[in-house]
Amino acid sequence: MNPVIDTIMSHRSIRQFKDEAMTKEQMKTIIEAAQMAPSSRFMQTYSIIGITNPLLKKDLGTITGLTYVENNGHFLIFCADLHRLTIMASEEEKQNMQDMLESTQFYQIATIDASLAAQNAALAAESMGLGVVYIGAIAKNLPEIDKLLNLPSHVIPLFGMAIGIPDQKPEIKPRLPIQAVYFENQYNSDAEEQREFTESYDQKMKAYYQTRSENPRADTWSGKNIALFQKKADANYSQYVKSKRMNVK
Amino acid sequence: MNPVIDTIMSHRSIRQFKDEAMTKEQMKTIIEAAQMAPSSRFMQTYSIIGITNPLLKKDLGTITGLTYVENNGHFLIFCADLHRLTIMASEEEKQNMQDMLESTQFYQIATIDASLAAQNAALAAESMGLGVVYIGAIAKNLPEIDKLLNLPSHVIPLFGMAIGIPDQKPEIKPRLPIQAVYFENQYNSDAEEQREFTESYDQKMKAYYQTRSENPRADTWSGKNIALFQKKADANYSQYVKSKRMNVK
Repeated sequence: MNPVIDTIMSHRSIRQFKDEAMTKEQMKTIIEAAQMAPSSRFMQTYSIIGITNPLLKKDLGTITGLTYVENNGHFLIFCADLHRLTIMASEEEKQNMQDMLESTQFYQIATIDASLAAQNAALAAESMGLGVVYIGAIAKNLPEIDKLLNLPSHVIPLFGMAIGIPDQKPEIKPRLPIQAVYFENQYNSDAEEQREFTESYDQKMKAYYQTRSENPRADTWSGKNIALFQKKADANYSQYVKSKRMNVK
Repeated sequence: MNPVIDTIMSHRSIRQFKDEAMTKEQMKTIIEAAQMAPSSRFMQTYSIIGITNPLLKKDLGTITGLTYVENNGHFLIFCADLHRLTIMASEEEKQNMQDMLESTQFYQIATIDASLAAQNAALAAESMGLGVVYIGAIAKNLPEIDKLLNLPSHVIPLFGMAIGIPDQKPEIKPRLPIQAVYFENQYNSDAEEQREFTESYDQKMKAYYQTRSENPRADTWSGKNIALFQKKADANYSQYVKSKRMNVK
């Protein structure tokens, strides 16, 4: 096990940070690491917004309902960004670009670009002894966040990331059995086998949830997921993305 | 600079590999690293398919038109996978799940989950002295790849990844200036400044493209991107995703 794999295998999300801001030097290293991620056709279709204004951080804490969005060493928001590609285009070229900018394919590509950059940032931070947690809860009010960040068309926030000096050390969560996520040559459609893998994992996670030191609960992995999906989808989400002229066609 | 940041900063895509397969041990480490990536609500909504059958690899090489999809040490396909969440659900629960499974929000979440896992895999491989390249060109014929891999509903392939022992050492590509991708507190909407950053990068990339040892060309970064976007979007892409009952609403 080399230091890279060691860092990767030691990941746990950190949700409680010491009251100490990251230095400019640390953040520069983390952002430069993000920039080195591969990107589709080298288009680099992402942007990162660092939140340093305490009032803005407070607003984001309120929107997400998460204390650690406000209280951390630095807070980042990763955006899918197709806008930058248009900056040097003439008006006519810009017009011609719209159809592809609005496509599902390039919405997906920008989402992937931003995610690869984010994971580089996360690992760079963790390698420096810092802790991180991804924040999906910005989805609770994207139009509001959009306004706060003054995002142009073809740019949407995907997730936040809180970074800081860990003030907790949660257990590492067991992952699905490798046979449940990795297949050779074709998807494993053997329903019996799939149920077996998932069931054994459910038992393992039940024990984990019951005995973990913080926030213990009685639950299985599948039970939690199935319960989550019994609701209707949040139509606001799709509407917001389309309002930014992404994923329209 | 620690070994993790060193690995991250040394990334270049490798498109020519020695004729040597990865060992089972190496692939196990790489997949386990992928599994340790964070995932939204810990749903782990991705699957990875390793292609070991030479005939299948040949087919994928033909579809993508890329020799290194066939000739490498191991080839992976990363999928967004919402299917697994339904495995333990009753018929009635499964029915109720469909609305959220079909939503743009969870299509995006699964895309992000798969991407974070992939970047962990890429860095784990690179830390072991291996080279990698992401393959977006599987998008050239997704229905065909879907059939070859026997993917169920709510599972779509996002990109491939070729892994192997590098048989080339391309220069590292310069990234956008940090001021072009990282902003504080709000998006930089100063059009003048944005053009300045992009223009200086265009000049830098022009010099890079002209002088690099392999495949030199006369081009700017913006010029290449703008030219790419002058076409109509590929409607097949969005149709395929919807046919898998994802991103429908």
